[in-house]
Amino acid sequence: MSFSDATTFVPASTAGVADSFESPVSFKLLYFPIHSNGATSREILSYGQAQWTNLIPKDWDREKTRTPFHVLPVLYIATSLGKELILSEAGVIEQYLSKQWGLLGDNEYEEHLIKVFHSSSASLQNSHASSAVWVAPETRAAGVAAFREGALRTWMESHEKHLMANGNMVTTWAISLADIKTANVIDHLGLQPGGQQLIHLIMRSPALRKVHATVAQSPRIAAWRASQEYLLLSKGTRAFFADPTGMTIKSRV
Amino acid sequence: MSFSDATTFVPASTAGVADSFESPVSFKLLYFPIHSNGATSREILSYGQAQWTNLIPKDWDREKTRTPFHVLPVLYIATSLGKELILSEAGVIEQYLSKQWGLLGDNEYEEHLIKVFHSSSASLQNSHASSAVWVAPETRAAGVAAFREGALRTWMESHEKHLMANGNMVTTWAISLADIKTANVIDHLGLQPGGQQLIHLIMRSPALRKVHATVAQSPRIAAWRASQEYLLLSKGTRAFFADPTGMTIKSRV
Repeated sequence: MSFSDATTFVPASTAGVADSFESPVSFKLLYFPIHSNGATSREILSYGQAQWTNLIPKDWDREKTRTPFHVLPVLYIATSLGKELILSEAGVIEQYLSKQWGLLGDNEYEEHLIKVFHSSSASLQNSHASSAVWVAPETRAAGVAAFREGALRTWMESHEKHLMANGNMVTTWAISLADIKTANVIDHLGLQPGGQQLIHLIMRSPALRKVHATVAQSPRIAAWRASQEYLLLSKGTRAFFADPTGMTIKSRV
Repeated sequence: MSFSDATTFVPASTAGVADSFESPVSFKLLYFPIHSNGATSREILSYGQAQWTNLIPKDWDREKTRTPFHVLPVLYIATSLGKELILSEAGVIEQYLSKQWGLLGDNEYEEHLIKVFHSSSASLQNSHASSAVWVAPETRAAGVAAFREGALRTWMESHEKHLMANGNMVTTWAISLADIKTANVIDHLGLQPGGQQLIHLIMRSPALRKVHATVAQSPRIAAWRASQEYLLLSKGTRAFFADPTGMTIKSRV
């Protein structure tokens, strides 16, 4: 199974759609056979014990016109209305799913702090992509070094400072969207060529080490990470980023 | 005046902070003296007739440690609690401000559709930045061409399709965060070297032309755009992007 039925957004004016959106029944997440921008949504779905299916495109170049913006991930939401809803854009999907299972804090202020940290960690991954992934192979080593000494160091120092000021976590919750995203971005960097050096650097930060460990210890996330499906995605991620510009997945993943 | 007092996040556990966050009194937005990632927040503040101040850093390289992640924009929020709150990350600030003045639709579903379009247009600007701005000057022309034929064309075609399906706007509202962002990104592209060619291409789309015109016709946004302060920001934007890698603002703006 690859694509689901919905190919475009159901208009907001459709009768019943607003109510049905708030009571989703089950989900399908469509993304490439790697972690990257699919990782956080898959872990939230696992954390929430949602009824969900992990979809992988079979022939993306031919199939991409079936998605709203020709980019992945895409989330399909089955509702009681009997009409499948579709959402696009990784950050929006992650925020929506987080809200379903209490991963956005206890009030508007906590929610916004969590979104700030979520966005900052997502930006770090984008910064890595533009300086060290989507570059000519001969400039990659210089790009990795610039990333390590620039964006990565600033991110580490500032997150460490804020996490320490808040008792090692961004919220009073045991786990939040921000924590899952931060842990996923750390693991993403570790799966890059030479990524173990980046992990070694990040793990010098006690607060980031604690966020990473806390997410890994969540029983439902741990169960997903131990699955055969997850291990195949890890293998796919390593293979993809070993030679990203040579692979057939042309989009930025 | 450049920086405000707050330099870090007020912990969510602070007494009264969650309530005060929902009743802001006034705002200061700190960003570089250009439009780019400050444009949408400034227009929302203008649209909302907020009491707000536009702050510009005086010496960013020395001052950036006074911001949470060493990136701009940053929003300072004065509340009845007497404690200034701070938010970071352009997308989160834009979403927060939009919520204050009804620019996020009427229900959760509309809000998520608006956020999807908001994110897609923000991604287009990021895609332009990485293919045509933060590149070696000798590869810029090729980068602009790749952007025009790739990301821009896909964005135009997909947004046109969705806008037409929804009666030329993403929501049933007269104006939303998505519309303001889309209009701002179009104007951003127009201020780039050779940007008039991109504008010419985009304006061939009736739906995108209508979004752009609708935002421009909003009386409070029109008043802000006619101000001396706005015109100086336009001038600064043109000057900055004429030679971005040679300017003293080193961060991605």
